[in-house]
Amino acid sequence: MEKSIKLTEVCLRDGSHVVAHQFTEQQVRAVARALDDAGMHYIEVSHGDGLGGSTIQYGKSLVDEMTLIEAAADVCTKAKVAVLLIPGIGTVNELKQANKLGAQLVRVATHASEADVSAQHIDKARELGMEALGFLMMAHSVPIEKLVEQAKLMESYGAEAVYITDSAGALLPNEVRERVKALRDTLNIEVGFHAHNNLSLAVANTVAAIEEGATRIDSSVRCLGAGAGNTQTEVLLAVLERMGINMGIDLYKMMDLAEDIVAPILPVAQEIRKGSLVLGYAGVYSSFLLHAERAAKRFGLDARDILMELGRMKVVGGQEDMILDVAADMAKSMKVRG
Amino acid sequence: MEKSIKLTEVCLRDGSHVVAHQFTEQQVRAVARALDDAGMHYIEVSHGDGLGGSTIQYGKSLVDEMTLIEAAADVCTKAKVAVLLIPGIGTVNELKQANKLGAQLVRVATHASEADVSAQHIDKARELGMEALGFLMMAHSVPIEKLVEQAKLMESYGAEAVYITDSAGALLPNEVRERVKALRDTLNIEVGFHAHNNLSLAVANTVAAIEEGATRIDSSVRCLGAGAGNTQTEVLLAVLERMGINMGIDLYKMMDLAEDIVAPILPVAQEIRKGSLVLGYAGVYSSFLLHAERAAKRFGLDARDILMELGRMKVVGGQEDMILDVAADMAKSMKVRG
Repeated sequence: MEKSIKLTEVCLRDGSHVVAHQFTEQQVRAVARALDDAGMHYIEVSHGDGLGGSTIQYGKSLVDEMTLIEAAADVCTKAKVAVLLIPGIGTVNELKQANKLGAQLVRVATHASEADVSAQHIDKARELGMEALGFLMMAHSVPIEKLVEQAKLMESYGAEAVYITDSAGALLPNEVRERVKALRDTLNIEVGFHAHNNLSLAVANTVAAIEEGATRIDSSVRCLGAGAGNTQTEVLLAVLERMGINMGIDLYKMMDLAEDIVAPILPVAQEIRKGSLVLGYAGVYSSFLLHAERAAKRFGLDARDILMELGRMKVVGGQEDMILDVAADMAKSMKVRG
Repeated sequence: MEKSIKLTEVCLRDGSHVVAHQFTEQQVRAVARALDDAGMHYIEVSHGDGLGGSTIQYGKSLVDEMTLIEAAADVCTKAKVAVLLIPGIGTVNELKQANKLGAQLVRVATHASEADVSAQHIDKARELGMEALGFLMMAHSVPIEKLVEQAKLMESYGAEAVYITDSAGALLPNEVRERVKALRDTLNIEVGFHAHNNLSLAVANTVAAIEEGATRIDSSVRCLGAGAGNTQTEVLLAVLERMGINMGIDLYKMMDLAEDIVAPILPVAQEIRKGSLVLGYAGVYSSFLLHAERAAKRFGLDARDILMELGRMKVVGGQEDMILDVAADMAKSMKVRG
């Protein structure tokens, strides 16, 4: 079992949200070097919203992600560098460039109901000789049959695995089990799982996914990721060791990396705070959190109410520009009521 | 189902470890008032190691716990004040005094294999007209048959419920299920569950316990408790609401309490750090953490190694004085080897 599970460390991509995309080249080198030394399988490096995400809308990166990808690839001796690409944000040109600089795997991410926009990028990645995997975001927001249908589309485009991506950290363990089982029963490729810890269930959900046969797993050292973070890598490794699953990754080295290299980078600790808890409870996209908090401040609102409203509207990743509009409308209607 | 589950908030008792027992009367009043207002069922107030714990060995309290118990009882309109008592640390005299000041429930706590020392205190509490519950600590460290045997002893002494207390945060969800089921199958009284989040499984384990029929549940606002903390109250409530279980406690008020009153009290955020992760992985008592870190500093050791050694030695709660000895021995043998 252990040999078939491949771990992707996402602290340098999903964790990019936590530092508002201000990673330095030195930080990326230090983290990637320590991950490689501990035996991590894949290390994802990109803007938090994937290749090309460094924009006014998603947040400008301090350092060009291509520089960071090259730096990570430069220090890795065994680990492979991965990138995230959301079609519409990232393009084939950026994928080519990332591949040239050392990225060997790409996860092509779409909303759970929009797999069809991934065809071109998966195809291109295979052509470049990269591993190409599909990443179905906000997997909690569509019925299981829809998720299966969309995963099969990605398989038909040439994806070598499809991830159930719990972007909102909204899934409960039994909901994870159902979804992994449904995909395992219908796909001929690997099934992956990516969690967020907004309901404090990331580790439990990830273990449930592994028990149901998921073999591509995402995790993040010190829980560094959007919202309340992802599945905490060093904790997951400890739990898996307790279960008799040895991933070939050094637990003590991962703990030291978390404590000595990653923790000092964090602007605030990765607790489950009000905002991120509401993300999971309302079922909205994790990267909405900072935007909602900013909008709340600007319009004198409670960020929770904005997030609950976005959840009701089923707003999807990529619609961050709607947050200010929603907040403005809410503020206006409160004024009218007042 | 919801009506039968009773929640005990432990931030003012287990959380006492986090602030090194320096709670002020004003803090206790503010937290207890907000908990009562949100609809919390029970609020535990005691030194972190239970009544009488304010000693050089366990850490001196800033304010006498009797003052804090009286303050909490004073502000509660519906919530009941609970206390923890570990025979050998606390005595019947302290129990009487706490009861006189407003405590209506006591959890009498023993190591999972030493229920027999709880007989006198459970009996006395019943005599005083208090609810008397048993609390089997380090429940992961004994075989299930032993746990059942010890729980039956507590039942025979008059306990109205017995808790499976995962003091080390070492249990996995299936291990929680087995234990709750075994107790439910053999006891005629309620079964309770108390978690620690050292392996990031506290919420998942608590949900598993509830699914198996546990009806006395412990949780802590903002995860405030020894080690990596307990089951985070506001997160548990959100998950239970998602599951259709309404506890009659206001989720938004609990979130506000966590953010506005409890978070500012915390000296450091409740992340899962190296030390607390090792507690869960090694299976040692949560309150050992600060002691081990101090000993590590003093002897130039790694706190992890001390905790792993304590785990191997199966040291139990109450043996905190051994930690310095263990550390001294380890330092000496390193010197010899060096």
